Amino acid sequence: MPKKVDHEARRQEISEALWRIARARGLEGASLRDVAAEAGISLGRLQHYFRTKDEMLVFALAHINQMAEDRIRERIEALPGDPTPREVLHACLWGMLPLDEESRTGTLVGAAFFHRAVHDEALRAGPKDGIPKLRGFFADQLRRAAERGELPPERATEDEAMLLISLADGLSTYLLLDVHGPEQAMHLMDLHLSRLFADDATR
Amino acid sequence: MPKKVDHEARRQEISEALWRIARARGLEGASLRDVAAEAGISLGRLQHYFRTKDEMLVFALAHINQMAEDRIRERIEALPGDPTPREVLHACLWGMLPLDEESRTGTLVGAAFFHRAVHDEALRAGPKDGIPKLRGFFADQLRRAAERGELPPERATEDEAMLLISLADGLSTYLLLDVHGPEQAMHLMDLHLSRLFADDATR
Repeated sequence: MPKKVDHEARRQEISEALWRIARARGLEGASLRDVAAEAGISLGRLQHYFRTKDEMLVFALAHINQMAEDRIRERIEALPGDPTPREVLHACLWGMLPLDEESRTGTLVGAAFFHRAVHDEALRAGPKDGIPKLRGFFADQLRRAAERGELPPERATEDEAMLLISLADGLSTYLLLDVHGPEQAMHLMDLHLSRLFADDATR
Repeated sequence: MPKKVDHEARRQEISEALWRIARARGLEGASLRDVAAEAGISLGRLQHYFRTKDEMLVFALAHINQMAEDRIRERIEALPGDPTPREVLHACLWGMLPLDEESRTGTLVGAAFFHRAVHDEALRAGPKDGIPKLRGFFADQLRRAAERGELPPERATEDEAMLLISLADGLSTYLLLDVHGPEQAMHLMDLHLSRLFADDATR
């Protein structure tokens, strides 16, 4: 196996050890040493791949986001025919909610990351770059929907895209806090989407 | 000073030391010992008031939430005449966004709490009890607005109340991550509110 691939594979193994800790007891207070122990390697070996907890967190989050993206893309590609913009948005938003073990872990790693990024400008570079891209992608879908006559044209905006993203984030928080269950979170997301697409014929 | 009041005052002083740490560098990894040092007391003395970090976090959060509630109530009482339900909702939602130093600290302590509560059922008791109460209060305001003919009656629901709360939470996250600034967060909250109240006469 080429050296570079091996290096990536090892980083991924370590990252999976980090996820197991995130799932089981949270990353708060988890040290590099804890992650090394969980991965079954020495601390020195782990530091060969990640020098700091932040480096590890950024990698783990990028990797779990990539997995979520792949999962969402697969789901969209599995839709019969040419998916509508609304179906694309639906698949993305449902992929953002912590509805299964994998996306739940993603949200937990994301929360640990958030916690550190608030106090670290370098860490904030990720979301400061990534979220506007996601917002742009969502806005593109809204514009496509408006062109197809499926969305009131005045709703095809970056602002509406950001409301969708923010809502998915807030619903995820209350889902992880058991304030509501998965069914209710999906119902609320659906309710907002149907308002956006003006499903309610009375208005 | 009676003993009980003194005890509460001391807990509050310690809680303020915790906020200073939350503001400056975050609570991730902050130990009871760190908080004792910041408060200028011994670890043993601190443990006389809080046995665990969770106990301290719950107290600090309850206290900061109480301050936010007082601030919101003052703001509502300062409104001229009898405030409309929409003005009440506006004051509450704006009080939930991290727009100043105090509410920013509140959000940071809340994030630290969230991070631990996801893995601890006892800690989740707070939001599991508190958020439905807030949702109920918001729903009451929506019903009052509908009765006054200021809101389409079909929007006066617990679901719409929960969408408002979830949105405020998500907008706060992206505000603390610098994805958007305070102006943009307020603009997006306003946009959702104006859709809810059907300000847009074209729909």
